[in-house]
Amino acid sequence: MYPKSIQNLIECFRKFPGIGEKTAERLALASLEMEKDTIDLFAQSLIDSHIKIKRCKVCNHLTESDICSICSNENRDQKVICVVEEPKNVILFEKVGSYNGVYHVLEGLISPLDGIGPDDIQIKSLVKRVQEKNIKEVIIAVKPSIEGETTTLYISKLLKDQKVVVSKIAHGIPLGSDMDYVDFLTLELALSERKNISD
Amino acid sequence: MYPKSIQNLIECFRKFPGIGEKTAERLALASLEMEKDTIDLFAQSLIDSHIKIKRCKVCNHLTESDICSICSNENRDQKVICVVEEPKNVILFEKVGSYNGVYHVLEGLISPLDGIGPDDIQIKSLVKRVQEKNIKEVIIAVKPSIEGETTTLYISKLLKDQKVVVSKIAHGIPLGSDMDYVDFLTLELALSERKNISD
Repeated sequence: MYPKSIQNLIECFRKFPGIGEKTAERLALASLEMEKDTIDLFAQSLIDSHIKIKRCKVCNHLTESDICSICSNENRDQKVICVVEEPKNVILFEKVGSYNGVYHVLEGLISPLDGIGPDDIQIKSLVKRVQEKNIKEVIIAVKPSIEGETTTLYISKLLKDQKVVVSKIAHGIPLGSDMDYVDFLTLELALSERKNISD
Repeated sequence: MYPKSIQNLIECFRKFPGIGEKTAERLALASLEMEKDTIDLFAQSLIDSHIKIKRCKVCNHLTESDICSICSNENRDQKVICVVEEPKNVILFEKVGSYNGVYHVLEGLISPLDGIGPDDIQIKSLVKRVQEKNIKEVIIAVKPSIEGETTTLYISKLLKDQKVVVSKIAHGIPLGSDMDYVDFLTLELALSERKNISD
């Protein structure tokens, strides 16, 4: 019902996850109101990033070079690896800014229900990296879901015989949150993982 | 923190209304996972629609020609005009499918608080159209907000001396809705605009 070119654009927006028909329509119509330069830049950025971006050969993070800027940074501690699910988790920790080691992006979590086994994500390359690079510590920083816990357990078992410390980030009640609004599972976890502070 | 090309893409997505930082990031990363063909089509559609789409010279609806497909359709009743706020309202009525007249897109509503007066929207061209084209009926179909009511009142006053019937679409309780969930203003309106069914 819209002219063909708008209809095409709406269908393109609809291909994105989480974008329904109404939102796609709204975004397509909004693009018509934008400056020509903005649209040209947008179109160019879409194509550019699609061509240039690849996975870092060391850690699987997104990069425009063979090795990402974190893995090739000599000021970072290359002996400590933080294991995350997705590239955006790397960005999250980088924004926090307190971590100075390197990363390993798993590109997913073990999820038998979805048919994702250990060989479908980047676990082998992690073990190889730990063995070859004489890594001191592996910090597992995946979300505290069934998939996250399964993946954490699997990796920690695989690295058991290596001379490497395996740790996982703390899960519990987030800072500044009202206890009333914390879900039951988190409260249960926070209780069972309580810390002795009497020493 | 992301490679430059992704960062550019995220910033482009952020320019859309209703797209925050997290969503822009999610959409940009999702685009990297898509097929090359899909991305090329998306980029082309953005540029295409931006170049091709203009406003219909008669009704201001979006079109790729000078006159839109509705205004140039001889099977439509060109003597009845449905006045709407935006092009997407035209599409909505077209989807309903029961209306066979033509449209007039105001491109906004009168809103003194936002500094939008009658001359900032397509009211003059509507009056001109009514006078020159010997229009029989003008159906005002804008949303029942303060802006909508102001615009409706303004147009109906302007057209008072013309030989044209001016009507507005019915407002009230939507079909199939649970009375409990209808807001108070709508209930009040539904009550005051009640219809006598005893005849």
